[in-house]
Amino acid sequence: MRKRNKSLEQCFKVKTVDFQELQEEAVEVHRLHRGKLAVSSKVPLQTRKDLSLLYTPGVGAVSKVVAEKPEEAWNLTMKGNSVAVVSDGSAVLGLGNLGPEGALPVMEGKCLIFKKFGGLDAFPIVLATQDSEEIIRVVEAIAPTFGGINLEDISAPRCFEIEERLKNELTIPVMHDDQHGTAMVVLAALLNALRVVEKKISEIKIVVSGAGPAGVATVKLLLKAGARKIIVLDSKGIISKERVGLESYKEELAKVTNQEQLSGSLAEAVKGADVFIGVSRSNTLFPLHIQAMAKRSIIFALANPVPEIMPELAYQSGAAVVATGRSDFPNQINNSLVFPGVFRGALDQRVSRITEEMKIKVSHALANLIKQPTPEEIIPSMFNPEVVKVVAAAIQD
Amino acid sequence: MRKRNKSLEQCFKVKTVDFQELQEEAVEVHRLHRGKLAVSSKVPLQTRKDLSLLYTPGVGAVSKVVAEKPEEAWNLTMKGNSVAVVSDGSAVLGLGNLGPEGALPVMEGKCLIFKKFGGLDAFPIVLATQDSEEIIRVVEAIAPTFGGINLEDISAPRCFEIEERLKNELTIPVMHDDQHGTAMVVLAALLNALRVVEKKISEIKIVVSGAGPAGVATVKLLLKAGARKIIVLDSKGIISKERVGLESYKEELAKVTNQEQLSGSLAEAVKGADVFIGVSRSNTLFPLHIQAMAKRSIIFALANPVPEIMPELAYQSGAAVVATGRSDFPNQINNSLVFPGVFRGALDQRVSRITEEMKIKVSHALANLIKQPTPEEIIPSMFNPEVVKVVAAAIQD
Repeated sequence: MRKRNKSLEQCFKVKTVDFQELQEEAVEVHRLHRGKLAVSSKVPLQTRKDLSLLYTPGVGAVSKVVAEKPEEAWNLTMKGNSVAVVSDGSAVLGLGNLGPEGALPVMEGKCLIFKKFGGLDAFPIVLATQDSEEIIRVVEAIAPTFGGINLEDISAPRCFEIEERLKNELTIPVMHDDQHGTAMVVLAALLNALRVVEKKISEIKIVVSGAGPAGVATVKLLLKAGARKIIVLDSKGIISKERVGLESYKEELAKVTNQEQLSGSLAEAVKGADVFIGVSRSNTLFPLHIQAMAKRSIIFALANPVPEIMPELAYQSGAAVVATGRSDFPNQINNSLVFPGVFRGALDQRVSRITEEMKIKVSHALANLIKQPTPEEIIPSMFNPEVVKVVAAAIQD
Repeated sequence: MRKRNKSLEQCFKVKTVDFQELQEEAVEVHRLHRGKLAVSSKVPLQTRKDLSLLYTPGVGAVSKVVAEKPEEAWNLTMKGNSVAVVSDGSAVLGLGNLGPEGALPVMEGKCLIFKKFGGLDAFPIVLATQDSEEIIRVVEAIAPTFGGINLEDISAPRCFEIEERLKNELTIPVMHDDQHGTAMVVLAALLNALRVVEKKISEIKIVVSGAGPAGVATVKLLLKAGARKIIVLDSKGIISKERVGLESYKEELAKVTNQEQLSGSLAEAVKGADVFIGVSRSNTLFPLHIQAMAKRSIIFALANPVPEIMPELAYQSGAAVVATGRSDFPNQINNSLVFPGVFRGALDQRVSRITEEMKIKVSHALANLIKQPTPEEIIPSMFNPEVVKVVAAAIQD
């Protein structure tokens, strides 16, 4: 064991040095280009004639057509290919409340991924307010430019109400990706991991560590997909009906999970569990935890950049399938696998609302891209060009 | 005269047919490309390494730097090169209240011009509200993404308060281009027209037909530039202190113009005037009007697409210098000559407010690009690459 731990320490050190270098390089790249997102023209603009068609006086006729029939905005303007990536910067990555400017680099990056993988023109809107009512009003007000709204890095529990209200009040699709993007990819990966270990979703015990946006949406989608036994933990331990002082969204979780009314810490929760899904910022999964789980356990250690447990250690401790959020290990569970395709499909099909049924279809479509899942391959690469196609095709009324 | 009129009729007819064709072509171009604005990456994004630098995990370091020092958003994000083109669609071109979707084609076109001539990444934000207070709150909320705010096609008198409030409440430059863009180009053209006719701005009588955003800002800038005698008309005739029921912004105009307390119609206003500036939607200038003006008169017939008087007829009626807003006649007075350079300069110099002094400098810089003004050339072409440079250079604290 000592030797193993030493090599693991070594491994951690190398990763840490790499990560430090990566961070420095990232700052330099951003400084060199002054950010990374630009606006460009889809149409040649060289001559006076071009200008007279694209701007005054020709554009007046286009405006009149759209004003008479606003539906034509989908055909004659950028609306039909545009997504707003909206954040108030209150929960940026795992870094916390960094404010709107602090969120902007992440949102620009998200927009690049929308373009790269979905061909969508996404634009970051970072907000100088963290008041839920104001956020709702602002997003409603700016909606006409866009075909869809991607909410991002908004803290719980505000994100739940903001998303729900906007979904009801707008006729374009609204999705909080931290919730549903994560949930869809987790379900896809789980479907294939279960094929590897030959277990059924209806029979397994799942531990979800983290009751933030990702945890809540994942639990809901897993239940909808047939899971029956789920234990959820937040930073204070297992969530149960008996715990006092629960926030209302956690009360809701308590109603649909933990039927045995377990209480206590992670060590209590993982006993006999088949699946561990880590979507918290900081909880650590130890070898003893995995050793206490059922045989052929599945570990999704999704904390970023440092997973709840490193894959090598998880396998050494008895896990059968391990996934992380990182690109430098096999099985990267990353929202980028779904959000470009979800909005691509929604805009192409003029879907006004992303339903739970669509999300489950997305997860199955993604899982089915892997014909023969193995412990090292339960989820496709985001560079697989089929990904966006099958995800988009799953978004249909 | 009959022959002349016939040829003019002929001329109008040809123009009308051309314009009809242009409009149809414009709609087709927009339909073919589904609008005209796209989002693109300034940085290569091909590999996993690229992704890890531009998105997670590398981007987290960039976000932390910016969160600690929001000023760094100007160096590490798109903010320093981004402009929001904001409209509520309440006064789109000369077409009236077309709503947000109806405004979108114009705003997209404006963004293309920002890019083409100013190298700026401008993005259209069309609003589902025409409530001034709400517009102010929304623009304040979305401001962090942007280095500047271009307000566009917002009706008077709301545009005045919205702009003034936003200028006071934001630390980035805010400009309602319908007002100030027009005013700066008109002043530039007037400076050179006065060189052609050898008159002084302090001695001339100017008639401004139209008391909307463009008229109001033009009058203010002309006064600031040394003009002393200005008569302004709205759709009801000459604005004077004695007119009852004036809106408050027109009362303000009455205080600084029309010292002789003229009243009546355009025919009354133009008697002995040296300059006519048409910035209304519909008023027509007739040959008789020009014949009643002073010798060597200057006519800026800026209504679009149909000028208050066609240039040929204006010259026939005795005008010495004629300009319009159209690209198919000499002397096109078009905002595109200034707004790209104004924001280019403001963002490069981190200017937080566009002052009257800067605007006058812009007008002089633009006028000075024409070394030897003639009746056919009082203003440079917007395709002249020097334009954006000299305009940007004029924007300095």
